Amino acid sequence: MSAPLASWIDGLRTDVMPADDRALHYGDGLFETIVLRSGCARFLEAHLARLALGCARLGIRFTDMPRLRAEVAEAISLAPRHAILKIIVSRGSTVRRGYAPRGTETARRMLWLWPAAEPVPPLAAGVTLELATTRLGENPLIAGIKHLSRIENVLAAARAAEAGAFEALMLDTSERVISGAMSNVFAVRDGRVITPRVDRCGVAGVMRGIVLRECSALGLQAAEASISVEDLLNADEVFLTNVRIGVVPVGRVGEHACRMNTCSQRLTAHIENLDA
Amino acid sequence: MSAPLASWIDGLRTDVMPADDRALHYGDGLFETIVLRSGCARFLEAHLARLALGCARLGIRFTDMPRLRAEVAEAISLAPRHAILKIIVSRGSTVRRGYAPRGTETARRMLWLWPAAEPVPPLAAGVTLELATTRLGENPLIAGIKHLSRIENVLAAARAAEAGAFEALMLDTSERVISGAMSNVFAVRDGRVITPRVDRCGVAGVMRGIVLRECSALGLQAAEASISVEDLLNADEVFLTNVRIGVVPVGRVGEHACRMNTCSQRLTAHIENLDA
Repeated sequence: MSAPLASWIDGLRTDVMPADDRALHYGDGLFETIVLRSGCARFLEAHLARLALGCARLGIRFTDMPRLRAEVAEAISLAPRHAILKIIVSRGSTVRRGYAPRGTETARRMLWLWPAAEPVPPLAAGVTLELATTRLGENPLIAGIKHLSRIENVLAAARAAEAGAFEALMLDTSERVISGAMSNVFAVRDGRVITPRVDRCGVAGVMRGIVLRECSALGLQAAEASISVEDLLNADEVFLTNVRIGVVPVGRVGEHACRMNTCSQRLTAHIENLDA
Repeated sequence: MSAPLASWIDGLRTDVMPADDRALHYGDGLFETIVLRSGCARFLEAHLARLALGCARLGIRFTDMPRLRAEVAEAISLAPRHAILKIIVSRGSTVRRGYAPRGTETARRMLWLWPAAEPVPPLAAGVTLELATTRLGENPLIAGIKHLSRIENVLAAARAAEAGAFEALMLDTSERVISGAMSNVFAVRDGRVITPRVDRCGVAGVMRGIVLRECSALGLQAAEASISVEDLLNADEVFLTNVRIGVVPVGRVGEHACRMNTCSQRLTAHIENLDA
């Protein structure tokens, strides 16, 4: 997984990009990470819908969705059985120096095709979460969307990796649990599946949306709720979600051993069989 | 000012960059915007010190400061009498997919030389500040440094420009005044010059540091202090600072006409004559 199999900028195969792009200069754009499996882009419509929402929120006029779809199809045609497709849509090249866009920028599409390991069944013991010292800044305008200004996630993920943990547990500045650095977090209590709201910070993960939607098919009640670290430690089960890792049970939060249960396994089996 | 005069990536003249750079993917890097005037990089040491501090905070191992200095010298040799030099130092190319750096990335240097307009003496009427709806997320680890994850500044600057204002006035989530989108803000009250702390959000601007340092030379007392919007409206004078605009008096905050005074003019005259 050390290099992409292919990359495209505005439809052309290349591994360089214009150095005046606002994604580089200001984190001014959005991204999606999509799982390709057996020639199919899993949950593509949910990814593209979030991308479109992000463009609307940032005021990026992205009118090339049909071209992006064609490029996704081209990438799929080149992909091995298990692959990852990353998409960035940036506001485009700088029209004038400075933060404020002029409004006449042309959005830029960038795609990378990566090989992916075969999916590994989650360890029965669950993964370890390390409490991040970095807090997520709260900002409703950019909450939920997958924008490119991700230095907070980078720092939290770096610390978790140093600590040997699978993922960082990120809180907001009010000490509420929000998410992992690269995943959403769920807690199960008395058969009820809850996950933090992401309307002030965090990302509305595609797999988070799938889990919220599919719980009822398993007879589980699912809801957004405020969650403290203590709630997490006292939960009947804690699990993480993203499209790449799926639904992964948490075995430890720092030194604390979490209770394990069966919701994450049942969700994994159910979601595995969903159509893309 | 529609295109840079020249750009360099790791010392080579080019206008493209590797598409796998972490600055593009995660806003994982730092930048400086330096004023070049008559063959001299103004306040270069302060810029490079902040850059080094930012690298230390983000855990970017940047050991190429001597090469960067040589590249700055090359840019200066090509610069017209008034120019802007932008520097980005990124963590470098992705070694593996995902937020967490591997720790073996090689930091990348990028420079852009832009023409700049002749400095304009500040309007006696002062500029207009528009209160931003976007709040600055609070995060001590990345506060003060000039990292590349700037979507909050982009959105605030965009709204201010749409409203016809010179600059956005940005508050934190506790409604304290922090800064402009691209500048620091000062208030004068009873001969005392105050500016918000930037230890939870905001950027420690180079010109902010110069003003804090140089006030005493003008017999003014300067300090960091908590400032509310009301404090700003009741101040004897409000002014903005950054290295490009210098010290600029504020004439209006939204609909409110600010009191005007002489501190900003005196600071402008004094700083104009400082050695770089």
